[in-house]
Amino acid sequence: MEDTLENLTTATPQEGFELAITLSQRGVTVTQPSEEVRKRLRPIYAQDPDSLIAVSQVIAINFQTVAAANNYWKV
Amino acid sequence: MEDTLENLTTATPQEGFELAITLSQRGVTVTQPSEEVRKRLRPIYAQDPDSLIAVSQVIAINFQTVAAANNYWKV
Amino acid sequence: MEDTLENLTTATPQEGFELAITLSQRGVTVTQPSEEVRKRLRPIYAQDPDSLIAVSQVIAINFQTVAAANNYWKV
Amino acid sequence: MEDTLENLTTATPQEGFELAITLSQRGVTVTQPSEEVRKRLRPIYAQDPDSLIAVSQVIAINFQTVAAANNYWKV
Amino acid sequence: MEDTLENLTTATPQEGFELAITLSQRGVTVTQPSEEVRKRLRPIYAQDPDSLIAVSQVIAINFQTVAAANNYWKV
Amino acid sequence: MEDTLENLTTATPQEGFELAITLSQRGVTVTQPSEEVRKRLRPIYAQDPDSLIAVSQVIAINFQTVAAANNYWKV
Repeated sequence: MEDTLENLTTATPQEGFELAITLSQRGVTVTQPSEEVRKRLRPIYAQDPDSLIAVSQVIAINFQTVAAANNYWKV
Repeated sequence: MEDTLENLTTATPQEGFELAITLSQRGVTVTQPSEEVRKRLRPIYAQDPDSLIAVSQVIAINFQTVAAANNYWKV
Repeated sequence: MEDTLENLTTATPQEGFELAITLSQRGVTVTQPSEEVRKRLRPIYAQDPDSLIAVSQVIAINFQTVAAANNYWKV
Repeated sequence: MEDTLENLTTATPQEGFELAITLSQRGVTVTQPSEEVRKRLRPIYAQDPDSLIAVSQVIAINFQTVAAANNYWKV
Repeated sequence: MEDTLENLTTATPQEGFELAITLSQRGVTVTQPSEEVRKRLRPIYAQDPDSLIAVSQVIAINFQTVAAANNYWKV
Repeated sequence: MEDTLENLTTATPQEGFELAITLSQRGVTVTQPSEEVRKRLRPIYAQDPDSLIAVSQVIAINFQTVAAANNYWKV
């Protein structure tokens, strides 16, 4: 999380999806900067179906941005 | 889930919708990598209307991305 | 639900909205394939305002996709 | 609700917003076709801040679609 | 709320954000037209973090529309 | 929060993400202008996984807007 976000270009959709995950995690870190607290919370929401679905939704929204930034990796 | 995401192009909207489902599932796997836990949770949220609606929403968001990537399968 | 999704083109916004409903329902069927269970759940969420609003939201998201696919039915 | 959705073009943003409201209501009617039940539920969610915010969100999503369909009413 | 929505063009992002707030409030007024009730509800949701986040989300969605309508205020 | 929003252009995605955070916070301040109340609420939602995910979602939506405004920082 210490590195900055240099650009949204990725080589493949796979890397783009990973960038979307990173963006989603950063959005959490903004409010809860303590890695210790985040680690403590993780087992709670990782067993809660609605939390898991909500995380997937945030990733989906960020993936829209990354995919558009990469022109959907069209060749 | 072991295969990587090579591209967002699909032959038909049907395949595009299936890719949107895959993306939505991956967004869950990120937080809960244990297939055993996911299988245990499934009967819970599969009987909860609000969870079912929320899953459908995540798929809808990912389908927006896949549809745009395929220029909406216009001929 | 047995038929596949051939294309996103519809003649009118009305048909487009109906396609958005179909897409939203498919997103539910993915997780709960049993028609019997879905029918049993229906009276529950059909009386819950928040569920009704959530369903309308999923349809709205899918309608964005269908409308874009049809260039908003502009003549 | 008996009339069909002929097109998404409106003369003004004001009319476009009203169309977004109509689309949002139709998304509810799909699941709960009984006007009597909808009227009975209304006083419940009209007093619940979270329901009111959720309705506003669905309208906002539909307004995105209508606004794009009208090229944002740019002259 | 008595004035109508004439156009989505604003001079600055600041004014655009304010228009997004107005649109979000209108989406609430649709369901709860009574200013008295809305004022009574306000202190409740203004102290509820999840309601505050949800309001911010509706504004964000409306700001997407207003920003697109203004071509992102690019010069 | 006293400064106005002059434009959506940023030099890098990193700054764009920070602007998305600012926009998300402003969306909260609209409803709860008291900094004292917001500070009091913070420790509550900063320990609630669902609130953290919801905040990340609002940032993701605002980041979509900022990214589009900057043409995704493509060179």
